[in-house]
Amino acid sequence: MKKNSTNLRLRLPALIFASEVVIVVLYACFVTYDDHANALLQNNQTRHMENSFYQNYPFFADIQVMIFIGFGCLLAFFRRYGFGGMVFNFLVATFTIQWAILIQGFFQFFYDGKIHLSVLNLINAEFACAVVLISFGAVLGKTSPVQLLIMALLEIPLFGVTEWAVLKYLRINDAGGSILIHIFACYFGLGVTFVLYRPSLNEGHPKVSTSYQSDLLSVMGTLFLWVFWPSFNSALTFKGDDQHRAVLHTFIGLSASTITAFALSSMLSKNGKISMADVQNVTLAGGVTVGASVDMMISPAAAYVLGVMGCFACMLGYKYLSPVLAQKLRIQDQCGIHNLHGLTGLISSLAGICAILLATEETYGPSLYETFSHQAPPEGDPQLMELQQLIPDLEAGLGRSAKEQALFQVAALFGTIAVSAVGGMLTGVVLKLPFLASPSDEQCFDDEVFFTVPSDYDCVNVLSETRKAENE
Amino acid sequence: MKKNSTNLRLRLPALIFASEVVIVVLYACFVTYDDHANALLQNNQTRHMENSFYQNYPFFADIQVMIFIGFGCLLAFFRRYGFGGMVFNFLVATFTIQWAILIQGFFQFFYDGKIHLSVLNLINAEFACAVVLISFGAVLGKTSPVQLLIMALLEIPLFGVTEWAVLKYLRINDAGGSILIHIFACYFGLGVTFVLYRPSLNEGHPKVSTSYQSDLLSVMGTLFLWVFWPSFNSALTFKGDDQHRAVLHTFIGLSASTITAFALSSMLSKNGKISMADVQNVTLAGGVTVGASVDMMISPAAAYVLGVMGCFACMLGYKYLSPVLAQKLRIQDQCGIHNLHGLTGLISSLAGICAILLATEETYGPSLYETFSHQAPPEGDPQLMELQQLIPDLEAGLGRSAKEQALFQVAALFGTIAVSAVGGMLTGVVLKLPFLASPSDEQCFDDEVFFTVPSDYDCVNVLSETRKAENE
Amino acid sequence: MKKNSTNLRLRLPALIFASEVVIVVLYACFVTYDDHANALLQNNQTRHMENSFYQNYPFFADIQVMIFIGFGCLLAFFRRYGFGGMVFNFLVATFTIQWAILIQGFFQFFYDGKIHLSVLNLINAEFACAVVLISFGAVLGKTSPVQLLIMALLEIPLFGVTEWAVLKYLRINDAGGSILIHIFACYFGLGVTFVLYRPSLNEGHPKVSTSYQSDLLSVMGTLFLWVFWPSFNSALTFKGDDQHRAVLHTFIGLSASTITAFALSSMLSKNGKISMADVQNVTLAGGVTVGASVDMMISPAAAYVLGVMGCFACMLGYKYLSPVLAQKLRIQDQCGIHNLHGLTGLISSLAGICAILLATEETYGPSLYETFSHQAPPEGDPQLMELQQLIPDLEAGLGRSAKEQALFQVAALFGTIAVSAVGGMLTGVVLKLPFLASPSDEQCFDDEVFFTVPSDYDCVNVLSETRKAENE
Repeated sequence: MKKNSTNLRLRLPALIFASEVVIVVLYACFVTYDDHANALLQNNQTRHMENSFYQNYPFFADIQVMIFIGFGCLLAFFRRYGFGGMVFNFLVATFTIQWAILIQGFFQFFYDGKIHLSVLNLINAEFACAVVLISFGAVLGKTSPVQLLIMALLEIPLFGVTEWAVLKYLRINDAGGSILIHIFACYFGLGVTFVLYRPSLNEGHPKVSTSYQSDLLSVMGTLFLWVFWPSFNSALTFKGDDQHRAVLHTFIGLSASTITAFALSSMLSKNGKISMADVQNVTLAGGVTVGASVDMMISPAAAYVLGVMGCFACMLGYKYLSPVLAQKLRIQDQCGIHNLHGLTGLISSLAGICAILLATEETYGPSLYETFSHQAPPEGDPQLMELQQLIPDLEAGLGRSAKEQALFQVAALFGTIAVSAVGGMLTGVVLKLPFLASPSDEQCFDDEVFFTVPSDYDCVNVLSETRKAENE
Repeated sequence: MKKNSTNLRLRLPALIFASEVVIVVLYACFVTYDDHANALLQNNQTRHMENSFYQNYPFFADIQVMIFIGFGCLLAFFRRYGFGGMVFNFLVATFTIQWAILIQGFFQFFYDGKIHLSVLNLINAEFACAVVLISFGAVLGKTSPVQLLIMALLEIPLFGVTEWAVLKYLRINDAGGSILIHIFACYFGLGVTFVLYRPSLNEGHPKVSTSYQSDLLSVMGTLFLWVFWPSFNSALTFKGDDQHRAVLHTFIGLSASTITAFALSSMLSKNGKISMADVQNVTLAGGVTVGASVDMMISPAAAYVLGVMGCFACMLGYKYLSPVLAQKLRIQDQCGIHNLHGLTGLISSLAGICAILLATEETYGPSLYETFSHQAPPEGDPQLMELQQLIPDLEAGLGRSAKEQALFQVAALFGTIAVSAVGGMLTGVVLKLPFLASPSDEQCFDDEVFFTVPSDYDCVNVLSETRKAENE
Repeated sequence: MKKNSTNLRLRLPALIFASEVVIVVLYACFVTYDDHANALLQNNQTRHMENSFYQNYPFFADIQVMIFIGFGCLLAFFRRYGFGGMVFNFLVATFTIQWAILIQGFFQFFYDGKIHLSVLNLINAEFACAVVLISFGAVLGKTSPVQLLIMALLEIPLFGVTEWAVLKYLRINDAGGSILIHIFACYFGLGVTFVLYRPSLNEGHPKVSTSYQSDLLSVMGTLFLWVFWPSFNSALTFKGDDQHRAVLHTFIGLSASTITAFALSSMLSKNGKISMADVQNVTLAGGVTVGASVDMMISPAAAYVLGVMGCFACMLGYKYLSPVLAQKLRIQDQCGIHNLHGLTGLISSLAGICAILLATEETYGPSLYETFSHQAPPEGDPQLMELQQLIPDLEAGLGRSAKEQALFQVAALFGTIAVSAVGGMLTGVVLKLPFLASPSDEQCFDDEVFFTVPSDYDCVNVLSETRKAENE
């Protein structure tokens, strides 16, 4: 087995089978059913339709479509890397989910010596999966499946720890995951691609181009992400009016950013034409920007403005920032995740902080202490008992003021950026190890390296080159 | 900026940004949360899982898929206009939704000086969106995005007024929107295309053709519409058995029209071959024809027959009526919306009237007055109190007889046709204004006009022409 | 009309219209609404949101996507048979559903002289539909639509009888349909293809190949099946924790089999490259293998192992068994249904039997007698009354021991194989009748036979042949 060979024949099975053995042993030792999935705990008090399953499964199903079909199609935009985009997405997603069930399980669903499994864990695992897939966007086409699996293997524990620390100790408001999902994934991915820097790619690569069909397929991915993004942003909010608002805001933010993307795309192109890359990516910016404040009473108009702002940041990032990052800072961000997840995540975090500072009992009533649970009075505080008469389910909080909460949000933001960027760089170092089947520069963005391709594989290419030659 | 230029660089951003300013100001002044999305109104009586959100969101999500992916793929059937079909659908849909939330909000969800927003408004806005997208079908490939947005801008207020007048004053039964959605959208679209008549297109246009891939993509759109149509037809019925029947009838009607479409397609083609255009369109006829009576006790067999009848009408319309409309009446109906939405809508309206006339208390029991709410006894009528003992939630109606109700249905049908046709023609006049980037005849059905296209864009075309030449 | 003509002009309409007349008469005479869809039965006790519709519709909608889009795209993998795969799937599915509503209705939903229709019947009909579509996989590209409809016409009654006999008399545990759906469909399909044996196809067929786009489309189908498979396997389980477990197991089983498929695909190919055919098919094996025990307390680790085992069986089947079946046993299984549904179904059945034998009250508590309803004490047994105090809804069973139940499972398995294989062969004999528009060997796998194809139809083919010639 040559050091630089891209042959997967031994490497990929070895990695997968080894992981499977570890995973199945850990599952056997540590994973059991949650009370709502455990036959033993059913009794004459059980009402089957009140099983938590029915509250979570519809959101889980929607997020499944986003992860497997939305991301899968979106990443298939390269002319010669459609298999890679769609199929490595599939591989990485299924691998990540198995692993995240364990890691997140240890941190969040572990008691009585066991991880307790329900659909709620699966939703969390799909969020972890979204993190890895976003990071994957930075190195799309430049990594082997072996490298991608190792990236997932390393990213998930770091994500699990960060998530646990932020949720348990900093205790922030971030219903849509702007900080924990988008910011983490973005800076991790940038860290990886920074280390995997390939100077020659800055001079252009013949295979970095789309085809008519790949552009259409990628837009389909965008549409699936768009359609189910409200479910993504609302899956883990409080039930009831909080979840309701999360859906409304996401929908409004997305539709505002979509029409803005069309305006900017035609305005910033030389000949006034719309670019498909913008339609595929920039339209989605609003879904991220509303994330951190998505369940709050920010007003529909604010969601609209957030959508527009996110779109501007994302579009200007693609146009002016990405080239600088690639040329000057050796950050080759293939899908522009810094624009779609980083810049928008920052805006979202800021908006979340503003929304926290502006939240009053006048607007929220006593449920202020539900949405901002950490500002609820602590256990034993007489004010808590008063509030519990108004909202019986209210849990004790930490008695934080809004300003304190804002500081914790800031801490979470910068902490997450630091941890993910450093973690990403270290992961990048690991991915540079030999024997990981990393493709050479010429082999990038090319399905032929890792797939048996059909005979018409580069026909379209040959044809369009012939035509170009004829035209010249 | 030349009068006839198709350059979008100034026009599209100007229109979008101006609209956004207006929309965001109106949202800020007038749009607030519905009680079910308002944190302030939660108290110790609130049961979160009884939030109206949970009743409506699953249907909303299904309709989202229809609007963005179903319509988007279906409209991408032209060989060189896949971007236009799929992407302008995306643009128009997101624009329309924002606008419809305001317009329908003023007419239907306005009280205490505010529009109250919930997922229910979003469902209504998506229906408004379906109206614009159906009308779009008549002018597909012949209009610029600027024209399409202006069409939406004008169509939505007219639709909003019509919907409000029909629902408030005529008070008709039309659960699946056969009259308000399909008929309105169809005649509006025909009015627009009548005014935008392009004589040269009647002689055939080289770009009016499909490719193997575009045909497959378009069928996928059909399949998504097919699969979620039951949700569309049942989203706004009464909950419970009414919604249950709506799903059963839609499903049966659609499956009946689908197999009929295959039979007719092979029967009416010269060589007995199936046409993909028929598979893409005619299969869906049954979904429209069951619309007006979809929640009534019409019997499964009647839903079946309606599906078959709708399919016949639609197929014969494509075969024999559309050419006449284009050649003789200067109505160039690009996607044949008159067949799929007009003729079927008429059949559906008639079927609805029959179902109303045939409805008896023997079949429906007291819930007759729920399904046919306007035939319920008016406030103060002693019969109302009797009925309310049987069905506590029953609301007072207008005490109409079935025949009276039938007349109102007829009035609504003809009123809608008249208003939409005239409105469409006036809109067409506006769309003929200069500076709207309208493509010339040769530029029709061509993505290159409004999009940066990949280098393989017309390869397939070149190739198939080469092949044709070789064969000759 | 020539005996061997493939012209559909008379044959297809004749068959469809005749079926429609029969179906509509039977619907009119025998099909009425279920109590939950019947307006007459609503009274002041009715709570609309407790209508069974709301428990079943979300699962129905998911399965719809699988049947129409999942199967449709998956079957479109041939380069020149995309229309056939996707569109005949559509035709066969809609036809089958109508027919299955009647047949299954007579066996399962018939009382008071009528078939009572609800969404539950539709779910059952879609399962019947899955059966026909799986069998279709064995003869894909080698049959006319007329033959396919006749196959459905014959397969559904046989399936209906088998299902009824097994559920009513043998009363087995098979929540995911491993025996009744996958095994039945597989051996029926193999029976058909055995009789329709075409020796010349064993020497290779020029049109048996994929294209870059068809491979991508087919993977999309796989992804849709993958995403909604948990709904498929859990749609007909008990509500509550049983359904919850079914989703967890399916998800875990699928993700285990997916990563295993990637490992095996690269390991078993000469150059270590991943084969798209494996990604399209073998990844799904885990969904079948967990089927028969999907609602039981088998533990998450066991679901994982089942997924891996299913994947091994399926992959080795494709690699080593399918060629033997085709060459030696004249079983030309076009999509390899014996690997994806047969071998995995056998493993699943065995796993189900083990799970039954290992089930104890210690693990399940009293709800053992719910999940394994036939082991519940029979009517009149004092133990039943004790159990009913713990679980009030518990129904009387047959008082079977676990071993007895295991024997019934074995009987069901072998009975199903025998019935379906013989039924498939007899159906094959019928399909050999003249006048059914069966394509000749050269016409196989070719859309041009039954569809009007666009002018670029075989461009890709021409091109890749040109290229091949150039390279030689």
